[in-house]
Amino acid sequence: MPSISSKGLEMPASPIRKLTPYADKAKQEGKHIYHLNIGQPDIETPQVMLDAIKSISFKVWAYTPSEGTASYRNKLSTYYNELGYGITAQDILVTNGGSEAITIAMQACINPGEEIIIPEPFYANYNGFARSAGIIIKPILSYIDDGFALPPIAAFEELITNKTKAIAICNPNNPTGYLYSRKELEALRELCLKHDLFLLADEAYREFCYDGREFLSPMHLEGLEQHVVVLDTVSKRYSACGARLGCMITKNSALWNTALKFAQARLSPPAVAQIAAEAAVDTPQQYFDAVKAEYTDRRDVLVAGLNRISGVYCPNPGGAFYVVARFPIDNADRFCQWMLEHFAYENQTVMMAPATGFYSTADAGTNEVRLAYVLNTADLKKALVCLEKGLAEYPGRRV
Amino acid sequence: MPSISSKGLEMPASPIRKLTPYADKAKQEGKHIYHLNIGQPDIETPQVMLDAIKSISFKVWAYTPSEGTASYRNKLSTYYNELGYGITAQDILVTNGGSEAITIAMQACINPGEEIIIPEPFYANYNGFARSAGIIIKPILSYIDDGFALPPIAAFEELITNKTKAIAICNPNNPTGYLYSRKELEALRELCLKHDLFLLADEAYREFCYDGREFLSPMHLEGLEQHVVVLDTVSKRYSACGARLGCMITKNSALWNTALKFAQARLSPPAVAQIAAEAAVDTPQQYFDAVKAEYTDRRDVLVAGLNRISGVYCPNPGGAFYVVARFPIDNADRFCQWMLEHFAYENQTVMMAPATGFYSTADAGTNEVRLAYVLNTADLKKALVCLEKGLAEYPGRRV
Repeated sequence: MPSISSKGLEMPASPIRKLTPYADKAKQEGKHIYHLNIGQPDIETPQVMLDAIKSISFKVWAYTPSEGTASYRNKLSTYYNELGYGITAQDILVTNGGSEAITIAMQACINPGEEIIIPEPFYANYNGFARSAGIIIKPILSYIDDGFALPPIAAFEELITNKTKAIAICNPNNPTGYLYSRKELEALRELCLKHDLFLLADEAYREFCYDGREFLSPMHLEGLEQHVVVLDTVSKRYSACGARLGCMITKNSALWNTALKFAQARLSPPAVAQIAAEAAVDTPQQYFDAVKAEYTDRRDVLVAGLNRISGVYCPNPGGAFYVVARFPIDNADRFCQWMLEHFAYENQTVMMAPATGFYSTADAGTNEVRLAYVLNTADLKKALVCLEKGLAEYPGRRV
Repeated sequence: MPSISSKGLEMPASPIRKLTPYADKAKQEGKHIYHLNIGQPDIETPQVMLDAIKSISFKVWAYTPSEGTASYRNKLSTYYNELGYGITAQDILVTNGGSEAITIAMQACINPGEEIIIPEPFYANYNGFARSAGIIIKPILSYIDDGFALPPIAAFEELITNKTKAIAICNPNNPTGYLYSRKELEALRELCLKHDLFLLADEAYREFCYDGREFLSPMHLEGLEQHVVVLDTVSKRYSACGARLGCMITKNSALWNTALKFAQARLSPPAVAQIAAEAAVDTPQQYFDAVKAEYTDRRDVLVAGLNRISGVYCPNPGGAFYVVARFPIDNADRFCQWMLEHFAYENQTVMMAPATGFYSTADAGTNEVRLAYVLNTADLKKALVCLEKGLAEYPGRRV
């Protein structure tokens, strides 16, 4: 029997999915599970997008250009320019989800064996993308007691070597919900200019900023045009995760042309998704206002509810639809598994993602958990009751 | 300005797209171009598939499981089992097009720095996938005068080292249209068993076998269950290239589980495409009969027409919808560009793919061209007239 590649064997399994067998078993036992573990929103996709799918008129479901259709890229550029990005359609490369935008950008910027610095906790799949490309992630700790603000620039400087090619941020952040400030982004700009580093900005959650706070992108910063690569997706903006449509945006034409070669190898992004996403650019503002109001309510219920539980601490983040909370527990992996395997309150339990999966540094985040507020406030309140009971009963409770 | 990765700079540009600027210019000048350069069929997508798209009923366009929906995998397994593959739904991993099936299979089987042997000419994007994964392709020449039959096993043996992890075939072949025989596949079986190699079989063109010839897959061979990985796509079978839906199939569960980790990192294949492709399994046999009759006519017109042109030789292939022909020319790249840039007959010209892009060995295929018979026979005949005139006029003609 041929041996599987060691690269494959070393690929990290998704930390979110490690608990799936326990969830399946809990379901078989008839338990109701509140799923706060994944970023699959329950929000409806805009009607204009669903209508566009139902109205397709082609007879041949053909390839589109590797960089995306001209029609979609043109329309999409108007969306970004209303945000003040100052781009052209030619700066956009349409991808198979935000995932492919990240892998293509990493590979176009960074050689195997070279390094990218990412504040942690960070989106766990960055590990898989980097591993797959032979790229090394240098994590840099952010702290729950600072609300997961950007680590001090001095801490970045300490990590920069001649192998460092890029810094990546996710803004608003998954898993922490943290929304970076103008001051923080400007500090990153100085750093990237000083050391000539690419700045990769994963903006999947751009639409989700709360309390009237303004979203700021590195695309808004002057002088960084050749360094910034924005990674985006329609998954969260339009609750269209199954479309598998994202894009990479850069004003650096040499980088864009290099990225295009990776895109050409896989021929084309999905055609129907591009038709639907083009229509989605016309989603009425009321849709976003309603969604934002809903998420604000959920965040307020969740954060307040968590902080009312004895021994729990949860910062109040400015964006996305996640929080990372500190629990009075010995080990988040054990606790989250225990909640599925051994706990029930009125035949219900809560599924969460241990934060350990979002840290690379050993032993970081051991008592932290990510919760996605992708359920309505009534269900969130019931989940909070469950969680409080669970934390009280958990044998590994620490004070 | 940060430097782009050398890996990115070294990524091969698509050989098929190198001529695009010349084609664009020819179009601007008002020339009509017969596009025999790409594998985008003009055949209509089955109505049952288009209807499924228009009938979507979900409200939330959600992620599907990383391995594909249970419903689609179950239905798809019936398609393969009617072919006698003897698989279960659990052996199928649904991918973003055939392209991703190839990249995931390569990475799960082969480490960076290790080798895969592929008979050439081969599908040019294999180069991009391998380069992206740091994998080395060892090409092994097949010859137009043999109709591009499998090279002798002794030639494979000469290339096998302790770095060799796999052999890949494309069957029926892109770009040659060659359909591998039972004897050839059995020889590959012995070779893979002897040296413990994976056998990757790209079967994108399985549906297109002519002259009553039977399609045979390595999946049909006994004793090779742990070695075979089938790479497939709905792109050509249903003329649904824009669906971006493929799959990887293996009975080797350790390999499947490893491949799943790569799939989990990118979350999900496209959701609407899975709904449509599930419906497509019920495409009536008449659809395939009509398509096969049409392609047989086209191949017959093209192959006979080519061989009637002075100095041209074209084997008569058993499958796919491509031929590779030898032309009386100095250089296929120059000739194909000249046809677009400097030639017209009654304001028409022909766009073809120089075969050099499908060879890795230097100077191989210099006087060969790939033609895709993706136009109807009336247009093919007009294209043949153009081509004959072009070959007669071409300054680099060689006899």
